[in-house]
Amino acid sequence: MEKGAPIKVYMTRKLIGVEPEDTVKKACETMVEFDIGSLVVVEEGRVVGFFTKSDIIRRVVIPGLPNSTPVREIMSRELITVGSNTPLQDVLDLMAKKGVKHMLIEENGKIVGIFTLSDLLAASRRRLETAIAAE
Amino acid sequence: MEKGAPIKVYMTRKLIGVEPEDTVKKACETMVEFDIGSLVVVEEGRVVGFFTKSDIIRRVVIPGLPNSTPVREIMSRELITVGSNTPLQDVLDLMAKKGVKHMLIEENGKIVGIFTLSDLLAASRRRLETAIAAE
Repeated sequence: MEKGAPIKVYMTRKLIGVEPEDTVKKACETMVEFDIGSLVVVEEGRVVGFFTKSDIIRRVVIPGLPNSTPVREIMSRELITVGSNTPLQDVLDLMAKKGVKHMLIEENGKIVGIFTLSDLLAASRRRLETAIAAE
Repeated sequence: MEKGAPIKVYMTRKLIGVEPEDTVKKACETMVEFDIGSLVVVEEGRVVGFFTKSDIIRRVVIPGLPNSTPVREIMSRELITVGSNTPLQDVLDLMAKKGVKHMLIEENGKIVGIFTLSDLLAASRRRLETAIAAE
């Protein structure tokens, strides 16, 4: 794990998405199937929203909404993104400051990936493997 | 972040708990209040269960259970723990292998803390600050 390396080295390029009219139930099944904590919401090939398990806890479970609620009603429309060349250390600082566990990565105005704390776990272990390999 | 250091250096000692008869709604409100992704379930001073936001997604939202469901119905009773002197690197390996984001830490048969990916974020940034301070 190189703190100065650009975030694109560590991000996940495969974005898993749902559509605005998909139900919360379907979105949750997708999260379980892919073992992920967030989803992008895609409309006509464009990312129009984003939400995490925390958003489902806050906006569905606590108010007691049914799992048939469409995701457009609970998604965040304001996307927090960083550029793909931002150093890992700056991304970690920003995530800690904002208290978020997922960060969308953009390149030329387009969202191209996501970096999550699970990616940080993978990056931390990679460094270890590199260290062991070098011994 | 020292990969060989014992996990007790990085764990959070303050465990936030709910009781078995508390509702899922109350548990979710506690998670939001403390900005945490998991809770221990405590009965007569003893940890009898554990659950995460993922468990709520899987066991409450997908099957469409009401948020008045008591947490004893959705908690995990089998607790995965590691000893407080386990090296950080072994804990990270175990978390990656098991695909979990939270690990309970025990000392003399008693659960004394928790280590989560948010603690890994904090640890990763501490290393950076140490590196900057050393420059």
